[in-house]
Amino acid sequence: MFEIEKLATQIKPVNNEYEETAKNYISHLTMPHWALGDLLDIGTKLWGIYEKLPPIISRKKVFIFAADHGITAEGVSLFPKEVTTQMVENFVNQGAAINVLSKHANMDLFFVDMGVGGESKKSHKKLHKKNHKQNNFVDKKIASGTKNFFEQDAMNEEQARKSLQVGFDLIKDHHLTTDIFAIGEMGIGNTTTAAAMAAALLGTSVEDVTGHGTGIDKKMYHHKIKVIKESLEKRKINSELSPLEVLTRIGGFEIGAMAGACMGCAYYSKPLIVDGFISSVSALLAQKFQPRCTQYMFLAHASKEKGHKKVYEQLQLKPILDLNMRLGEGSGTPLAMNIIEASTKILRDMATFESAGVSQA
Amino acid sequence: MFEIEKLATQIKPVNNEYEETAKNYISHLTMPHWALGDLLDIGTKLWGIYEKLPPIISRKKVFIFAADHGITAEGVSLFPKEVTTQMVENFVNQGAAINVLSKHANMDLFFVDMGVGGESKKSHKKLHKKNHKQNNFVDKKIASGTKNFFEQDAMNEEQARKSLQVGFDLIKDHHLTTDIFAIGEMGIGNTTTAAAMAAALLGTSVEDVTGHGTGIDKKMYHHKIKVIKESLEKRKINSELSPLEVLTRIGGFEIGAMAGACMGCAYYSKPLIVDGFISSVSALLAQKFQPRCTQYMFLAHASKEKGHKKVYEQLQLKPILDLNMRLGEGSGTPLAMNIIEASTKILRDMATFESAGVSQA
Repeated sequence: MFEIEKLATQIKPVNNEYEETAKNYISHLTMPHWALGDLLDIGTKLWGIYEKLPPIISRKKVFIFAADHGITAEGVSLFPKEVTTQMVENFVNQGAAINVLSKHANMDLFFVDMGVGGESKKSHKKLHKKNHKQNNFVDKKIASGTKNFFEQDAMNEEQARKSLQVGFDLIKDHHLTTDIFAIGEMGIGNTTTAAAMAAALLGTSVEDVTGHGTGIDKKMYHHKIKVIKESLEKRKINSELSPLEVLTRIGGFEIGAMAGACMGCAYYSKPLIVDGFISSVSALLAQKFQPRCTQYMFLAHASKEKGHKKVYEQLQLKPILDLNMRLGEGSGTPLAMNIIEASTKILRDMATFESAGVSQA
Repeated sequence: MFEIEKLATQIKPVNNEYEETAKNYISHLTMPHWALGDLLDIGTKLWGIYEKLPPIISRKKVFIFAADHGITAEGVSLFPKEVTTQMVENFVNQGAAINVLSKHANMDLFFVDMGVGGESKKSHKKLHKKNHKQNNFVDKKIASGTKNFFEQDAMNEEQARKSLQVGFDLIKDHHLTTDIFAIGEMGIGNTTTAAAMAAALLGTSVEDVTGHGTGIDKKMYHHKIKVIKESLEKRKINSELSPLEVLTRIGGFEIGAMAGACMGCAYYSKPLIVDGFISSVSALLAQKFQPRCTQYMFLAHASKEKGHKKVYEQLQLKPILDLNMRLGEGSGTPLAMNIIEASTKILRDMATFESAGVSQA
């Protein structure tokens, strides 16, 4: 059995000394003190993670984890469940936002089927025919979607552990050939799952962390809240539960995998870009296993989905962007990637006051 | 004499019909309604400006206008005046933030000497020797800095018109070979000039629009406010003045040139990225000449410099980024450029619900 708890204890904290070196170095660059703001905070954090002047980042990978959610049976989403499978097809055919944006940022894109309800084999075959570098499809299907957690546990412990392991192992397999990772997701119904998990993990009210997902109306929104509240009672969710128990009772396969990836990045000391609401909830789950995980994370953007702010405040992460986005698919990560890359170039390529002969303040 | 007033009357408004076409098209792309938020607003605005599906933007130019400011004699800046000239050297030698960032965004970078106090010929010669594409130096020096507007008008009318013309003409010369323009500036003391102009143009209090520039302390900050207030009285600034009179009495050569560029972009229907506080004040000046100018503008970022918000609210522009930056040099524009480019790719390359066979809400 995959012992995520044991791995979690082996995650090292980032050594602050490297960040101090970065700050000192930055004070010599030809600009007023910290005049590039967040760009310099990002560069400093990267220096700490890499334990050296950050490299020009060239090997960038984004993993999109897809799965279906049994809770859709309760009528919580605007789109039919089949859309998860249809969107996986769309990913394979390069038609989704994340295809366009990851190409824009020159990031390698991987899709991981964690439990899509429909037949994803068609996509699989198509992919092998195309053999397109930008389109790597990984079949790790655990089941055809989770169970409906309004009625029963979303998954069993073995499945929960397996979902975490898939994410962790992908980082394990790729960490030697990757400078930075990013995560994203697809799964009709997963804002409901994520809201339930956020309420459980933060110990906050359901209203505080439940948003309108793909765009449900007021009536459906109140129904969504009711479903989540009753589910939390039925599944006996309380603050004493372990993160594994929360995942088992009310989680999603893609959320477990993303949490595993969060832990993998921390374990292998690799920077990770977390995207929006749902991937942030997976980061929250990882944080419950091991608080140090967040030291390796960047948050791509502030999602428009209600509840995201409460989640990222708990993660103590500041969103790099705020573009009123609420799409998922990791769609914010290629945009944040550009800012992160800019920060490393600033550190590497700017002149110092001394080298440029510019007078100081 | 350059008649900016006449040109201003010939600037056309953006035709809203094209924006409606864009919105309709976007509603077919495979995502929940407007789920990419600001990215779609940007794409819509570009569709309006180009009057067609925006192109994949490849010809990107950023112009950095540099000049000295007589007001530095009043002790309003942390850095000595010579730094303007030294930084121009640094630009030529590729060592400044804007060099690194414009290269990152693959933007062609031009430096325009509008009135640097020191000898910029050295840079000029060096440049011609290097003949580096990324480093185009344009000598348009009007004078070795403005006069001290605490004592007398910053410039005469002829100089003010000339500064506007330089900016306008650069756009005129480049518009056929450019998809999008950006502006930025360098000039020790120019947050003082910009604050004075913002107070005059907005009719607001000096305190509201005066910030800490390169990082002055509390005492110097109060002195800066006092200098600006007394200058506004001495120069008889009131709400009846024309924008040309404001520029003449308390302006800067680089600010005039940027305002001219703002008007040039509107005149030739080209999108323009405005950077931070000082370039936004130049946009405010252009807006006074012709309110339609702002229809062609994007605002790169919210500067940390106090007063910026009041300025961009008047421009009715929303900052694309908020990264706690306050450097100038147009340093925010290459970062915003990436988001703008992403928006055009989203419009051009995403699948529709129909083409991808994805079910709708």
